Amino acid sequence: MIDIKEDERVDFLPNKNRKIIQSPNVFSFSIDAVLLAKFCYVPIQKGKIIDLCTGNGVIPLLLSKRSKAKITGIEIQERLFDMAIRSVQLNDLHKQIGFINDDINKIVEGLGKEQFDTVTCNPPYFKNVTEKEWNENQHFAIARHEIYCDLEDVIRVSSQLVKQKGKVAFVHRPERLIDIITLMKKYHIEPKRIQLIHPKQGKEANILLIEGIKSGNSGIKILPPLFVYNDDMSYTEQFTEIYFN
Amino acid sequence: MIDIKEDERVDFLPNKNRKIIQSPNVFSFSIDAVLLAKFCYVPIQKGKIIDLCTGNGVIPLLLSKRSKAKITGIEIQERLFDMAIRSVQLNDLHKQIGFINDDINKIVEGLGKEQFDTVTCNPPYFKNVTEKEWNENQHFAIARHEIYCDLEDVIRVSSQLVKQKGKVAFVHRPERLIDIITLMKKYHIEPKRIQLIHPKQGKEANILLIEGIKSGNSGIKILPPLFVYNDDMSYTEQFTEIYFN
Repeated sequence: MIDIKEDERVDFLPNKNRKIIQSPNVFSFSIDAVLLAKFCYVPIQKGKIIDLCTGNGVIPLLLSKRSKAKITGIEIQERLFDMAIRSVQLNDLHKQIGFINDDINKIVEGLGKEQFDTVTCNPPYFKNVTEKEWNENQHFAIARHEIYCDLEDVIRVSSQLVKQKGKVAFVHRPERLIDIITLMKKYHIEPKRIQLIHPKQGKEANILLIEGIKSGNSGIKILPPLFVYNDDMSYTEQFTEIYFN
Repeated sequence: MIDIKEDERVDFLPNKNRKIIQSPNVFSFSIDAVLLAKFCYVPIQKGKIIDLCTGNGVIPLLLSKRSKAKITGIEIQERLFDMAIRSVQLNDLHKQIGFINDDINKIVEGLGKEQFDTVTCNPPYFKNVTEKEWNENQHFAIARHEIYCDLEDVIRVSSQLVKQKGKVAFVHRPERLIDIITLMKKYHIEPKRIQLIHPKQGKEANILLIEGIKSGNSGIKILPPLFVYNDDMSYTEQFTEIYFN
């Protein structure tokens, strides 16, 4: 019997194939994480995948539908780590998915360099946290703001963990595109694929998906853009196809 | 009376407001140049604009509809330079637009550093030219390939010419996005706006528009994408609006 705490609920992931424990007090997964889990390259039959800043483990749970590789999630917040472990038990996936409750800046020595085929991360997006945000909810503050790790930590650690020619994929805000590309180049991850998500036609992009190859050749593809909503605020066919399947 | 040579014809620009001398043997303007001329920031009432690798002067001619600033075009090929001058006479715009027949790598001393409000460039896109391409048509080879100037020359010279906080805008292939961003950062042009052009919905981008600010703050916007064709290969309403107006 898996313990579900008082403020928690068991949700289905959008594809209805996986259950996930969530709590509105600490974390709920976002569209961003689901899109990253659909966008990134994964080895199909074997290999090793690692998801940094995994939160309640939404990306490992989704990737386990696409890949038989072993998947490790790293989460610094003990409460979220604990939820992630119980979600994996709930889905009977403990042979495929494991979690480590640690700071991403401290894991490389233990895990070993260049051991993973794919690294994914949906990192904290915002540079500075206000005192108000910190005081209101530290769980959200840590998940959203660069408090325990910043973009450079994420990209440096990703580069240390991924194999030569392995893939590294991030979701972030388009505003940070230049920082992301500059840091990927600094840590020898060559950007190879970008997809931009726009809330609707005629609007600026609000989500960036980017994938690189460790020590890859230069040359990038910009995939067809994805629009989330139609003019009547219903989901587009294209989004429904990706998000719910 | 303006001399029109035997292999030349006088075309209208897409907005029907300007005439341009073209020759299928040496150069015809492309969608790319027109889109750049619509995309870039221009000072409206006064100031100085420079267009590098101007070809037959299509970008200066289009910008003269949007701005009263003085516009200078730089072209290394004497034949194209000569066509550009005659097109300006044809439109009676010689008070606003001038051309220099020189290598962009040799113009900074003469023009002076940091004198321009806006720099535009639709540079040669391809790295290497084959012997066949060179032998078949040297005019096209020079316009399309990095023979007399490469991407780094274009970006370095643009940065030297533009004022502090002035704008620099390029059109290029999306495959070169990472090179472009890396070089813009190297020469202190902060990328601020990107627009991607896709031939149709569901297809990868094939044209990249990018604008930066000299010594600008970080943070970039990714504009709504532009689709050129509908499924039936007619122009989209959105493209028609931008291209023909």
